[in-house]
Amino acid sequence: MIIDVHSHLWAPPELNAMGLNLLGSDGHYSGMEPTIKDDRFLDHLQVLFNALDMVGTEMQIVSPRPFTMLHSRGARLVDVWTRWTNNAIAQQVRLAPGRFRGMAGLPQVPNEPIERVFPEMERCIKELGFNSILINPDPGEGTCHVPPMGDPYWYPLYEKMIEHDVPALIHAASCCNGRETYANHFITEHSIALLSMIKAGVMQRFPALKIIVGHGGGSVPYQMGRWRAERGAFPDLGKDSIKGKLNESAGTFDDALRAFHFDTVLHSPESVELLIKVAGCDRVCFGTERLGSGSQINPVTGRSYDDMKPDIEAMTILSDADRHKIFEGNARRLFNGLPE
Amino acid sequence: MIIDVHSHLWAPPELNAMGLNLLGSDGHYSGMEPTIKDDRFLDHLQVLFNALDMVGTEMQIVSPRPFTMLHSRGARLVDVWTRWTNNAIAQQVRLAPGRFRGMAGLPQVPNEPIERVFPEMERCIKELGFNSILINPDPGEGTCHVPPMGDPYWYPLYEKMIEHDVPALIHAASCCNGRETYANHFITEHSIALLSMIKAGVMQRFPALKIIVGHGGGSVPYQMGRWRAERGAFPDLGKDSIKGKLNESAGTFDDALRAFHFDTVLHSPESVELLIKVAGCDRVCFGTERLGSGSQINPVTGRSYDDMKPDIEAMTILSDADRHKIFEGNARRLFNGLPE
Amino acid sequence: MIIDVHSHLWAPPELNAMGLNLLGSDGHYSGMEPTIKDDRFLDHLQVLFNALDMVGTEMQIVSPRPFTMLHSRGARLVDVWTRWTNNAIAQQVRLAPGRFRGMAGLPQVPNEPIERVFPEMERCIKELGFNSILINPDPGEGTCHVPPMGDPYWYPLYEKMIEHDVPALIHAASCCNGRETYANHFITEHSIALLSMIKAGVMQRFPALKIIVGHGGGSVPYQMGRWRAERGAFPDLGKDSIKGKLNESAGTFDDALRAFHFDTVLHSPESVELLIKVAGCDRVCFGTERLGSGSQINPVTGRSYDDMKPDIEAMTILSDADRHKIFEGNARRLFNGLPE
Amino acid sequence: MIIDVHSHLWAPPELNAMGLNLLGSDGHYSGMEPTIKDDRFLDHLQVLFNALDMVGTEMQIVSPRPFTMLHSRGARLVDVWTRWTNNAIAQQVRLAPGRFRGMAGLPQVPNEPIERVFPEMERCIKELGFNSILINPDPGEGTCHVPPMGDPYWYPLYEKMIEHDVPALIHAASCCNGRETYANHFITEHSIALLSMIKAGVMQRFPALKIIVGHGGGSVPYQMGRWRAERGAFPDLGKDSIKGKLNESAGTFDDALRAFHFDTVLHSPESVELLIKVAGCDRVCFGTERLGSGSQINPVTGRSYDDMKPDIEAMTILSDADRHKIFEGNARRLFNGLPE
Amino acid sequence: MIIDVHSHLWAPPELNAMGLNLLGSDGHYSGMEPTIKDDRFLDHLQVLFNALDMVGTEMQIVSPRPFTMLHSRGARLVDVWTRWTNNAIAQQVRLAPGRFRGMAGLPQVPNEPIERVFPEMERCIKELGFNSILINPDPGEGTCHVPPMGDPYWYPLYEKMIEHDVPALIHAASCCNGRETYANHFITEHSIALLSMIKAGVMQRFPALKIIVGHGGGSVPYQMGRWRAERGAFPDLGKDSIKGKLNESAGTFDDALRAFHFDTVLHSPESVELLIKVAGCDRVCFGTERLGSGSQINPVTGRSYDDMKPDIEAMTILSDADRHKIFEGNARRLFNGLPE
Amino acid sequence: MIIDVHSHLWAPPELNAMGLNLLGSDGHYSGMEPTIKDDRFLDHLQVLFNALDMVGTEMQIVSPRPFTMLHSRGARLVDVWTRWTNNAIAQQVRLAPGRFRGMAGLPQVPNEPIERVFPEMERCIKELGFNSILINPDPGEGTCHVPPMGDPYWYPLYEKMIEHDVPALIHAASCCNGRETYANHFITEHSIALLSMIKAGVMQRFPALKIIVGHGGGSVPYQMGRWRAERGAFPDLGKDSIKGKLNESAGTFDDALRAFHFDTVLHSPESVELLIKVAGCDRVCFGTERLGSGSQINPVTGRSYDDMKPDIEAMTILSDADRHKIFEGNARRLFNGLPE
Repeated sequence: MIIDVHSHLWAPPELNAMGLNLLGSDGHYSGMEPTIKDDRFLDHLQVLFNALDMVGTEMQIVSPRPFTMLHSRGARLVDVWTRWTNNAIAQQVRLAPGRFRGMAGLPQVPNEPIERVFPEMERCIKELGFNSILINPDPGEGTCHVPPMGDPYWYPLYEKMIEHDVPALIHAASCCNGRETYANHFITEHSIALLSMIKAGVMQRFPALKIIVGHGGGSVPYQMGRWRAERGAFPDLGKDSIKGKLNESAGTFDDALRAFHFDTVLHSPESVELLIKVAGCDRVCFGTERLGSGSQINPVTGRSYDDMKPDIEAMTILSDADRHKIFEGNARRLFNGLPE
Repeated sequence: MIIDVHSHLWAPPELNAMGLNLLGSDGHYSGMEPTIKDDRFLDHLQVLFNALDMVGTEMQIVSPRPFTMLHSRGARLVDVWTRWTNNAIAQQVRLAPGRFRGMAGLPQVPNEPIERVFPEMERCIKELGFNSILINPDPGEGTCHVPPMGDPYWYPLYEKMIEHDVPALIHAASCCNGRETYANHFITEHSIALLSMIKAGVMQRFPALKIIVGHGGGSVPYQMGRWRAERGAFPDLGKDSIKGKLNESAGTFDDALRAFHFDTVLHSPESVELLIKVAGCDRVCFGTERLGSGSQINPVTGRSYDDMKPDIEAMTILSDADRHKIFEGNARRLFNGLPE
Repeated sequence: MIIDVHSHLWAPPELNAMGLNLLGSDGHYSGMEPTIKDDRFLDHLQVLFNALDMVGTEMQIVSPRPFTMLHSRGARLVDVWTRWTNNAIAQQVRLAPGRFRGMAGLPQVPNEPIERVFPEMERCIKELGFNSILINPDPGEGTCHVPPMGDPYWYPLYEKMIEHDVPALIHAASCCNGRETYANHFITEHSIALLSMIKAGVMQRFPALKIIVGHGGGSVPYQMGRWRAERGAFPDLGKDSIKGKLNESAGTFDDALRAFHFDTVLHSPESVELLIKVAGCDRVCFGTERLGSGSQINPVTGRSYDDMKPDIEAMTILSDADRHKIFEGNARRLFNGLPE
Repeated sequence: MIIDVHSHLWAPPELNAMGLNLLGSDGHYSGMEPTIKDDRFLDHLQVLFNALDMVGTEMQIVSPRPFTMLHSRGARLVDVWTRWTNNAIAQQVRLAPGRFRGMAGLPQVPNEPIERVFPEMERCIKELGFNSILINPDPGEGTCHVPPMGDPYWYPLYEKMIEHDVPALIHAASCCNGRETYANHFITEHSIALLSMIKAGVMQRFPALKIIVGHGGGSVPYQMGRWRAERGAFPDLGKDSIKGKLNESAGTFDDALRAFHFDTVLHSPESVELLIKVAGCDRVCFGTERLGSGSQINPVTGRSYDDMKPDIEAMTILSDADRHKIFEGNARRLFNGLPE
Repeated sequence: MIIDVHSHLWAPPELNAMGLNLLGSDGHYSGMEPTIKDDRFLDHLQVLFNALDMVGTEMQIVSPRPFTMLHSRGARLVDVWTRWTNNAIAQQVRLAPGRFRGMAGLPQVPNEPIERVFPEMERCIKELGFNSILINPDPGEGTCHVPPMGDPYWYPLYEKMIEHDVPALIHAASCCNGRETYANHFITEHSIALLSMIKAGVMQRFPALKIIVGHGGGSVPYQMGRWRAERGAFPDLGKDSIKGKLNESAGTFDDALRAFHFDTVLHSPESVELLIKVAGCDRVCFGTERLGSGSQINPVTGRSYDDMKPDIEAMTILSDADRHKIFEGNARRLFNGLPE
Repeated sequence: MIIDVHSHLWAPPELNAMGLNLLGSDGHYSGMEPTIKDDRFLDHLQVLFNALDMVGTEMQIVSPRPFTMLHSRGARLVDVWTRWTNNAIAQQVRLAPGRFRGMAGLPQVPNEPIERVFPEMERCIKELGFNSILINPDPGEGTCHVPPMGDPYWYPLYEKMIEHDVPALIHAASCCNGRETYANHFITEHSIALLSMIKAGVMQRFPALKIIVGHGGGSVPYQMGRWRAERGAFPDLGKDSIKGKLNESAGTFDDALRAFHFDTVLHSPESVELLIKVAGCDRVCFGTERLGSGSQINPVTGRSYDDMKPDIEAMTILSDADRHKIFEGNARRLFNGLPE
């Protein structure tokens, strides 16, 4: 089974249209959740079914489309909007249970305790049957300070994840800092999250925690030499030379990195290869985000950038067992409740 | 000649010690520039000479050590401190003119016009004989909004660079946002700078501009698929499918990226290979930052991470002519005044 | 002809759905204007046609639905979103030119000069054929200081209105101050705007200016005694009593108020009667906002609250000539380009 | 007995003069409470006695003159200044106990818990003999966020009112937002307070609570149609029409409004009539604020605007019993300790 | 003639009482300038005449009472309040022209150009006949950044002073920083003003400028050793010792200080002696501020602290000529228009 | 024994140089404490030994050089930098235990509880053998609000001082307000601290507390008349005159001041004499800060300004017993652990 661990809600426009009204009313429209009839929703899903059939994806873990979650726009909006969005995901899963599983969006709000997301998280797991969550490492969306993911601020969430045995996909949302598009902010924030968690030893503290760092780990696999060096010892070059170690962290950086999982949403075979070399086959999960940022046509191949299955199948560095891990095995180790 | 385009000042502690006093006095000590005797300075440089000889580097372009430049700490400090630092670089070059050339630090201050750096920039070029400049793409150091490098805010600087025919190394400085170390902020900011300049078409507007993006272009070469896709067209997947192009930029992203240069300060051969594949041999310059972030010993090789010359010499994807470009040729095309 | 001077865009959800994406992308999706097919739009309009036929409204002046305009959410959003919205209004008018005329939304942004709206305002008038504009007296939407409408900040807009001979409907938008719903913020802001313009003598300075204060003038007609008194002289009550006048404005407050126009969007016959008594028949224009805030069923009458035509027809204080002014005559004096 | 429930302190200038010094010294002059001799104070009161006699008012409930209370100017000032002001009210009442009763000002300070006012409130009730309190719904005076009066922030105050069986007059104070005069800010804030309390169901939660909304309820009686409609159901107009209810509040808006009391300080007979129609005779209390905002001469009548007794006596919609309620009966139900 | 160069307005409470109303109304009461009858004002002045006669003061230069000027409370207040205050000073001078001269308060507002005070300054000089001005070196009153008095921000004021040949008394006003009382803020700010002007060479740039630093120059005469040392050269104490000069200002600090004048408002003979030693008899002017901060009874002497005449007369370090300078001569050199 | 109670660390530049790196790295270099070899440090101390021998100082209490402590620059920096600095003081003391004792710097951080300094304070006392502490009354360094030293915020520190029986020298650090140099900020802040503690009665509440106010008490001894008067009673000057007392503090201001100690770091004999007159011989401790702000050569005497021993020896107001107190006796009463 080809399992795509990184995909987003494909709802009819009625949902986002009422989302705008909710925002415009500053939460006053909280009682106006849109009701989308099942046949209307199914009709809208045909395009997605078609797109997945074209590339051979059989199962998608469906999370909210991150850049529309608006975590920095106020609690009154976020609470309602996250609930509506998760309900729409549940509807999508219910309409095609053989193709989708739900990954819960969390009503994260900057400057509020992370525990605020627990009721909605547990509603999604217990009532809606979701098997995973999406974490925005920067709910401030570039507008204010949020503790990085190695900070104890986040530990209650890690404990709650372990309690329910659900993995998380780290995925930033919008970006309002006026310097980056949201598309680059993902890369920035996923790198910060990963480095912060490694520095704080989060995986040593919570060995049962399951984390997938979205978009191939941001910049970290490419900048590995930098982070490996930071753990090394300076040579003695004589009088007044630099001595000692800047960083007393135990173990190698490579070991620390391999406590995490990564998806393949890089839209480039060379980069996926580098990722596999750095993180190892046991730690890379097939992900495409289709339909999404990579669905455009690559003029070189004539296929969509997010059609990565042929590329992975063609990689000579992989054995068949390796490929199985990437396409299915690793995902099955992480996610509960997948169909046989 | 092995030319290292990315290295930093190696001054005795008297300089930074007085820098701290300058900061503590909020600029009141502006008249107390430290005078370091030449023999004291030369004695201190022996460690660096030793380190360069060990790895075969023959020439370094010397810029301020970025994370000590403190651009976000106020104009009173920055003006004096940048001048003192450039003077120390000039002394280092004067003491070993066969091994060093000067790259000027700029007294950048957030929320002030970029033209404020011109007097010091021209002093360095005309009076101190420097042949290049260091640009901090985020003089706010993570504390406030600075226009990204594609913004017209920066154009007067580009014009001034062309007027004097000096290249710039893009290199962030400190980071005070409480989420990243300065070491990761470099990666974040170099990515933002490069993407912003590409989106704004800066190189099309200023074809004579010479830009080196430090630390191998941040995350961009690794995330190439993402940026290539952003320029592509969505396929028609039937009713209600996404259509059209998100981004109307002309030309391919690869072409746009190859208008820039990149250094090899990645401390990892696999990543340097990826960079060369993406940017091409004409656009990659040897750089090590030695002594610096990569001087620690790699336990796997027994050599320092920043000792990249053997790795590049061993790359099978490169011809001798390619290697010459990387080690020397590209640098000679960019920098004036290098010795034969 | 029954002319409703106060109504809002009735577009299919595709518009607002893409508006949310535009917001989430912080303006990055500026090239993704939704294209709504004419038959799709016409089909959607049937509900509105039905609703207007039920109450006998023959012509509506169509403006953006104010609370969705998001003026306080940043210039990158506002510029694009206003243009898309005006285009949708133009499509609605084009699809039923006998029933609608366009009133332009303006890309107002707090802390920017009002002149920034001129290009879009003139595009709407000249290219889209609109005959009026909607002014948000508080583009800060309760989040920051905006000069009140008597301030010279607004005078260039008044001159531009006179230049094109277009009237304006004063109508606030969203409210994010956490104290009022947007529905009450309208009342607050329309009152502030009217009192500020009266105090500053705007209508004396710009006699050709045409202003309709939405929702019956906010609180002002009800609080008339307060404002009349503020212009009066204190009586001499003996030693140490208050003397003199607090306010040296010329003329009576009633005269000053009657330089403005008002709509009847009060959803209550008693209040409309008070408005007519205070402002006079020459200054009140029929307006319903249908479909909108008053379309709910009044259990007392069994009709919608916004079905005000029977109530006005039943008012004994009005002559037939008075009623004609309110239903049609005053609007024809204000708006150009209405069909015969 | 003609009872005016809304009037303000009439003290000699020594009080406010020392208030300015207290402000200028940022509270340093806290020990300099002005001592005004009784004969000096009585002499000063003659003007007020005269003014009341002219219009037939027999009893006034005397509160601080709101716009001088300066709640947003810092706790050091507010604590002392409120105490001095209440002491002056107590002196005024003591000097003419047959004509006055005291209504306590509260040392409200934005961003501090409402419980901070309890000691001064209880001092006024227990030691000074006051029978009511004045609540400023916006102690931030337009400069910062204050929770609206439906927020649980205020509930401890409601409980304390019930404990002592004292009614409150809602009355805003100064306004420093640069958009409204304080005179209009009263209208804005009284409307916000009333709508917020209705929406939160405060009167259902605290049935024994006695609230008078000053200045005739702000804009709410005039905008009744708007708020009635908000509780109604949309009609079914066919495909895609709006359905359901925006607001699930129980009961009619009219019922909710009639849980409050209102004064007649509107300076206009037409508006008082509208108020009586909307709120009913049981809920309207005679109030004039004389000497105050309406004491100027109305050129039409030759009487002061605040001389409303003849107007109410002339209203044909009222029976004698109704008039008695408005002039005296309702006040006696609300206020303890009034003389026979 | 005994001339007191430092005294403040002695107005009846009607002035400050209406000042509070002006503040409370946020400037709305700008038309309510209090009119104080001459006999009422004269009656009030008897206390002051008595107090001056007791100590032998014959002439006072009368300025606003600084801590009541409220410069940080907004331009709408400051403009009106300064004008009212200056008018009251003019009335005091007019009522006793043989005893008083007027020193103008300035409508200083932080974050606005200093030129804003010119119209009121010139009105006072030309229309009201004042001969001097009062400068608040910190119109922010401890709440925001104001450029110190050596900054070019202030130069237009110095030029305007020279144009009209009027001296200025430097005198801070209120203090709202929560750390100092206004009484200590005077000392802090007068010290900052003096040191800033010395460092910037203001008196060298404007030799005709006449400045009196209030309250004996703050802390500067006492801390003279500190400022003298700052201009000296460090001795050579051998290897690595401090060398050179921290401060390259020309001339001695004593010379720089003696370009200013100082008053004797120190309420302590020992301190006045230190001041005279440091500044010299030519630079010290008699000042008492009576009635004011020093009018309390000194239990040691039985006289008021501000009764300094006997102390100065008793100082053995002074000749008769010296005393004449202090009591009269220096003031006559500074102030125009004093009676013979 | 001549004991100098006010002197600062004299470390080689390696310390401050690494301090700058620590700052530039925003605390990331916390593991890079500089190790200075004892012979290197001793060699550097020769200049200081020489300087002390020249003036006859036998013992110094050594604290951090205040303006380099950077308390306002963030907790990550302050914690590490304070520890490094105290360690360097310990090394200086260990290298010359007959000449030095350690006074601990505290890791004060604005907006954090004062208790945060206890671990480092106790480490210095218990592990490093220090006998006193340095308190910065303004760790905000002019950038934010810090409670003044009379505020209960500080009481836990006073209790901890008493628990360990260690005295404190009050000494401000840097100043970043753009109005004062740090050198003047010392004077400002020491005055605020002293007046605040007197007003709050801190010494009455904590009789065992030992406080030395640095730099001769700031401005307070010079402005004594002002503070004495503030406690006095106004005389009765007839009708409407000021009466009563502004300040109800018990006892005289002189008594209150003499509960504190003061050093002689005034660099001026006249000022030291005034200090001794005001505070008394029992309350003044010899202090020079040599090498430091007064080490420059006084051209009048040919000696350094900080060479105050001859001046004190020459004062005719002092007996030999008085001089002994100042040079040694008072210090021995305050400081434990001084050598015989």
